[in-house]
Amino acid sequence: MENVFVNEARERLEAFLDERQFAQASALVKDMNPADAAGLLEELPEQKMPVFFRLLPKELAADAFAYMSPEAQELLVRSFSDRELEEVMGQLFLDDTVDMIEEMPANVVKKILRHVDAETRKMINQVLNYPKDSAGSIMTMEYVDLKRSMTVEQAFQRIRRTGVEKETIYTCYVTDSRRKLLGIVTVKDLLLARPEEIIRNIMETNVKFVSTHTDQEEAARALSKYDFLALPVVDAEERLVGIVTVDDAMDVIQEEATEDIEKMAAMAPSDRPYMKSSVWESWRKRVPWLLFLMISATFTSGIISSFEDALAASVVLTSFIPMLMDTGGNSGGQTSATIIRGLSLGEIQYRDVPRVLLKECSVALLCGGTLAAANFLKLLFIDRVGIPVALVVCLTLMAAMLVANLVGSSLPVLAKRLGLDPTVTASPLITTIVDAVALMIYFNVAKLVLGI
Amino acid sequence: MENVFVNEARERLEAFLDERQFAQASALVKDMNPADAAGLLEELPEQKMPVFFRLLPKELAADAFAYMSPEAQELLVRSFSDRELEEVMGQLFLDDTVDMIEEMPANVVKKILRHVDAETRKMINQVLNYPKDSAGSIMTMEYVDLKRSMTVEQAFQRIRRTGVEKETIYTCYVTDSRRKLLGIVTVKDLLLARPEEIIRNIMETNVKFVSTHTDQEEAARALSKYDFLALPVVDAEERLVGIVTVDDAMDVIQEEATEDIEKMAAMAPSDRPYMKSSVWESWRKRVPWLLFLMISATFTSGIISSFEDALAASVVLTSFIPMLMDTGGNSGGQTSATIIRGLSLGEIQYRDVPRVLLKECSVALLCGGTLAAANFLKLLFIDRVGIPVALVVCLTLMAAMLVANLVGSSLPVLAKRLGLDPTVTASPLITTIVDAVALMIYFNVAKLVLGI
Repeated sequence: MENVFVNEARERLEAFLDERQFAQASALVKDMNPADAAGLLEELPEQKMPVFFRLLPKELAADAFAYMSPEAQELLVRSFSDRELEEVMGQLFLDDTVDMIEEMPANVVKKILRHVDAETRKMINQVLNYPKDSAGSIMTMEYVDLKRSMTVEQAFQRIRRTGVEKETIYTCYVTDSRRKLLGIVTVKDLLLARPEEIIRNIMETNVKFVSTHTDQEEAARALSKYDFLALPVVDAEERLVGIVTVDDAMDVIQEEATEDIEKMAAMAPSDRPYMKSSVWESWRKRVPWLLFLMISATFTSGIISSFEDALAASVVLTSFIPMLMDTGGNSGGQTSATIIRGLSLGEIQYRDVPRVLLKECSVALLCGGTLAAANFLKLLFIDRVGIPVALVVCLTLMAAMLVANLVGSSLPVLAKRLGLDPTVTASPLITTIVDAVALMIYFNVAKLVLGI
Repeated sequence: MENVFVNEARERLEAFLDERQFAQASALVKDMNPADAAGLLEELPEQKMPVFFRLLPKELAADAFAYMSPEAQELLVRSFSDRELEEVMGQLFLDDTVDMIEEMPANVVKKILRHVDAETRKMINQVLNYPKDSAGSIMTMEYVDLKRSMTVEQAFQRIRRTGVEKETIYTCYVTDSRRKLLGIVTVKDLLLARPEEIIRNIMETNVKFVSTHTDQEEAARALSKYDFLALPVVDAEERLVGIVTVDDAMDVIQEEATEDIEKMAAMAPSDRPYMKSSVWESWRKRVPWLLFLMISATFTSGIISSFEDALAASVVLTSFIPMLMDTGGNSGGQTSATIIRGLSLGEIQYRDVPRVLLKECSVALLCGGTLAAANFLKLLFIDRVGIPVALVVCLTLMAAMLVANLVGSSLPVLAKRLGLDPTVTASPLITTIVDAVALMIYFNVAKLVLGI
């Protein structure tokens, strides 16, 4: 529904622009939601976008700008006059400005920084200095701060006076003269309190906060865990320096899920949406892991070569190699995906490791038993291979799944323990390891049972 | 840090409870955050939990209850006296009550429904009737509604009078006498307006909403896209029936990401955290896909069997089967993970399909070329197999990756087009298909080039 609408609007809009009917064009979008207007602008051809941006009402234009992709923002900034740039920058929230600057080439950043006031420039530079993916790098410094000696009425006056420019006014932060965080008070608390009540008496002093260097994902998860609208960020001296708002936390959680999925599929994570990234970018992000895994897979070739005699003696064994490898890989992939997600959500702790290993072994035996039984019947009655070969295949199947689940559950935990990212131990790596082990088991069991 | 703290608190708490030092025990947690208190309660042994729950201050107890797992909630409800149950139920927000009821056995649900007032019971039943995973099933009916003829001052009076029991007061909904949604007004708007201003003049009339039957994931993504704190939910007649709040939307986004990861690893999705689900549950969720994929993999066995003569003529060919299969599977897995996530985030639309296919072919040729070149050198100088065999392996490698990326990009799109869940076409299924195709290519190229 969403996209049908945007497409229709885009076609009508392009027609208006082509016929230079600017009044109709701006009427079409003047009441639009900023996020929708941004989507519409990005659909326009490059040369028409700046023309149309100028037709938007000032406030909507600035709001829509904040929602646009870095590419579109760059295009617009390059086309802006000094006065236009100043207007848009004046309307942007600090964290949106920082987000944008992080993606721009140096000459565009210079142009932007020339057009913001000195105080904003100082704050931008401060946020830019925090490590990538830290709470400091996604926070905003635009929050409402109160003093504990204020009355509720004075607090409301302060919110009314300063609130327009703040990203959220619903949680206010009570600080002392050295900006140390003393407590929080919500607008709900303020509304439900008597006007002459002192903030000190109604503020919540048991405040959850993170430090500027906390990982952004951890900050986002804390905010989600406690159902906050914003989470305060403090520096090493516990002075309040900013807040992470719920909308940014939600973006972080989505981005991190995407990154995890990409890494679990053996790719370097990507910052840009699929349709915006080039073939070369995709190549660069995929080929290192493909190469590494291909080289690892040559070990399995080596194993097969060293058992060439056994294979020559019983060629039928070859035909079950793919099934054994795939099933082991699938089982290990299931396990590692489960454990990696559990670690990432904090559902699995180190002290759970023995229970995890025991559980995965049990699951492997149950699943392996089921599959082996089904396979045994098929081998005997459909493939008609004889009981010894059927035994070799089914024993290998169960052993391979046991190994797969053990490797699939212990590798992610080990990676995390070593300070590495558990996602790199997902299915593709597990598959490669399990392949090699499964083949070793297969040929040794075959030698033993078949006496070849 | 979090868990260290909880563990320490738990040990001290257990000691206090064992020594029946209830005053110290309750002092330990009386200022705790409800989410932390819930975590702590769940760590306690079953028989101590209800004892301790009764020591908590009333309000904290009810808040903590809302954060607990269904298992712990059930345990507590079973141990509650009638009066206790009434107290806790009276404090819970409607959507938390519904969440809880959905997970309880029938006799516990009956006990709960006996202890809520008639109006709440009616609302609970209404929400329970919406389809699972719909916006209706996660919404709350507790919102602040205003009339458009009210003044700002009257609006504040209404918020003060009714706001305590509402889940969010920061976005208020303006409705007519038939509950049709006319507009929204935020507390920020209200605070910045003059007290005698009429709501009609300051409300935003371009309101985004979803219907009760909208998928919960779509609702959560809309809320995230527009940076809302709450999203109104309307019925078929566009009457306002509830709101989805940002904290629930964030939970939905996390759950859906977990589900996607599980499905992409060929498992039925799970509702319960890993450590809480049994071995049998895991077996039930994993074994159907393992069986299906194992049976599919037997096709590859068939292919190998039918080329037994070719293999017997050149046994060295066998040793490259795992490498070819793994690499094809890895490349297809990368592609399908990328496309599935792009579809799920709405970054890829149907009209993009030709560009997607073209891009994935180009990436396959680039990656395949790189891998083939590396492999060719290895085959000649390390494995010393001779140029014809090296050619067969490298040509197959490139062809397999091309097929893998085409299958990996078209299957998810096709699945979505057919109204199926694209996640089922993730790596394991792609691997199975690519294996079969890669082997066919391998043997046919071998026959052609080697003349066997």
